[in-house]
Amino acid sequence: MRYMVGIDLGGTNIVCGLVNEQYELIDKVKKPTETELGEEHVLQKMASMVDELLEKNGIERSSLLAVGAGCPGFIDPIRGVTIFAANLKWTDVEVSQRLGELVGVPVFIDNDVRMYVYGEAMSGAGRDGKVVLGVTIGTGMSAATVAHGELYYGHRFMAGEIGHVAMDGETTPCGCGLTGCVETIVSATGLVRQAKEALEAGRSSILREAYEAGSLTAALVSEAYDQGDELAKSIMQHTGTVLGKALAYAITAYSPDVLVIGGGGSLAGERLFAPVREALKRHVYHGYLEQLEIRQGELIDDGGVIGSAAFARTRWSQLTSTSSQAAASTSDSMRDCHV
Amino acid sequence: MRYMVGIDLGGTNIVCGLVNEQYELIDKVKKPTETELGEEHVLQKMASMVDELLEKNGIERSSLLAVGAGCPGFIDPIRGVTIFAANLKWTDVEVSQRLGELVGVPVFIDNDVRMYVYGEAMSGAGRDGKVVLGVTIGTGMSAATVAHGELYYGHRFMAGEIGHVAMDGETTPCGCGLTGCVETIVSATGLVRQAKEALEAGRSSILREAYEAGSLTAALVSEAYDQGDELAKSIMQHTGTVLGKALAYAITAYSPDVLVIGGGGSLAGERLFAPVREALKRHVYHGYLEQLEIRQGELIDDGGVIGSAAFARTRWSQLTSTSSQAAASTSDSMRDCHV
Repeated sequence: MRYMVGIDLGGTNIVCGLVNEQYELIDKVKKPTETELGEEHVLQKMASMVDELLEKNGIERSSLLAVGAGCPGFIDPIRGVTIFAANLKWTDVEVSQRLGELVGVPVFIDNDVRMYVYGEAMSGAGRDGKVVLGVTIGTGMSAATVAHGELYYGHRFMAGEIGHVAMDGETTPCGCGLTGCVETIVSATGLVRQAKEALEAGRSSILREAYEAGSLTAALVSEAYDQGDELAKSIMQHTGTVLGKALAYAITAYSPDVLVIGGGGSLAGERLFAPVREALKRHVYHGYLEQLEIRQGELIDDGGVIGSAAFARTRWSQLTSTSSQAAASTSDSMRDCHV
Repeated sequence: MRYMVGIDLGGTNIVCGLVNEQYELIDKVKKPTETELGEEHVLQKMASMVDELLEKNGIERSSLLAVGAGCPGFIDPIRGVTIFAANLKWTDVEVSQRLGELVGVPVFIDNDVRMYVYGEAMSGAGRDGKVVLGVTIGTGMSAATVAHGELYYGHRFMAGEIGHVAMDGETTPCGCGLTGCVETIVSATGLVRQAKEALEAGRSSILREAYEAGSLTAALVSEAYDQGDELAKSIMQHTGTVLGKALAYAITAYSPDVLVIGGGGSLAGERLFAPVREALKRHVYHGYLEQLEIRQGELIDDGGVIGSAAFARTRWSQLTSTSSQAAASTSDSMRDCHV
């Protein structure tokens, strides 16, 4: 049996998972990133977490195929470099090379959203899909597509930031410089902001107590929805409608047969998905909807780790396969993608 | 020197062009499709047009590599079958096989918009692009993407019908069953309809005379714009804004470095492109726009023919190359695309 380690490198925590070739998560460890101690410290910590996982599970280093790491921000998966990772404050860090030297096996990196969606496509809610569009709703919102087994990258590996399209009628400034981006509504942050603004405007809701205690969360909006709270219902309706309108274009562009909605925000489930479906019916040509299944992500917490491990396995196979077809496949899917 | 014939198979006319390996159009012939005489008649006519081009230009059949044909509607380019071509009234016609038997060389087919965009990407306005998003504005509006030399298909080869997303605030019923599709505004038909509706509502414009004579066209709207006509200016502004909003999502999804706007509607040029650029600045994350060039199509009339010829050459090379890499490339780009 051979194994991969998948790493979810966040601004706050590093999660490392030991994954087998059936993409089952065997074990995982989590430590604070401590990005303020510098990139060398973070790279060393990741390497020691890989060691820890192998040792703890009695796995010889020779059974470790490769390591995959999902990093936030703009990533060059060909060179294995973080072009710009805002919450790590990393610019042009050669993660694949430097971590590879520390762990002694090939290290492959990519953007964390692509890693998550790759995991869902290979081993989660999209495993039977031909073209899987995955959307993550968390603090922000983003998307990636795996078409016939290959991630779609676009120029400079930038495809999929569908959370940063400005919607007519929305007025919240977005961190990206635009006003009214999809992400300002469709995100945990967006749900809470909508509730706060309504409460500040005097709307009545059972959410007021949490608001005044400073403990309002997206999960509480879902709870209030279940108790029939009109404000929570209207927020879910609006959020799902905005998401549906944005997805209308993404579905038309990518033509997926499976849409996976993941990230913490997807835990809202049908409260959110019902208005998404309504909006899609109004906005998307029926031919796209007839072939589409909408599913909640299955790998919510572990998707980044499993996806990173699966990605590492695929890239490792492509690099090491004696079959020239596999080698050609690598060069095709990523050809000319360089920045 | 070897040649391809590219065919643009429309509901009204068939255009066949002789193209060399530098993708230069050597000669072309045009005949009415006469689709009412049946598919066998149309296939025979296409074959005789291929013969005519070879004979007229003194080219031996052995110098003909392959034939490519762009067909309207839903096409399966793997099986070479027209799944459904509305204006030909063709369902499941095995064009590649049947035309191949008549002309004696491999025949490759695809959707006409993809053929046009492939032509622009290989040999037109997008020839230096890495990821080329092409939009055609004619009677309708559609799009296709060539990423690193490969057409993006999506599931069931359906990706790119961005003209059929319903826009908020638009109320015109669309042939696809939705209301307010992008195409109801951004198309030659849409320009004329907007002018008619405004004139019928009593708006003053130098277009009234043509309207009353029943000779209003999209080109006349452009002419009126140049004469400072306020109605024509507001129509172009609105049309460009709608196009820009739709493109905001397509750009975010595909991450192109070149956007080619083609089809007859693109002859409006900066009259239309200026409001498109304004809308993009408001709606798209700046990172996408910094890498993007917007260009008018170069192959307006001949794009379908040149693109079909280029597509045929690429597919022929993939099929016949002794390099296994090329073979793998075919299977990768289209793998599992079957309906």
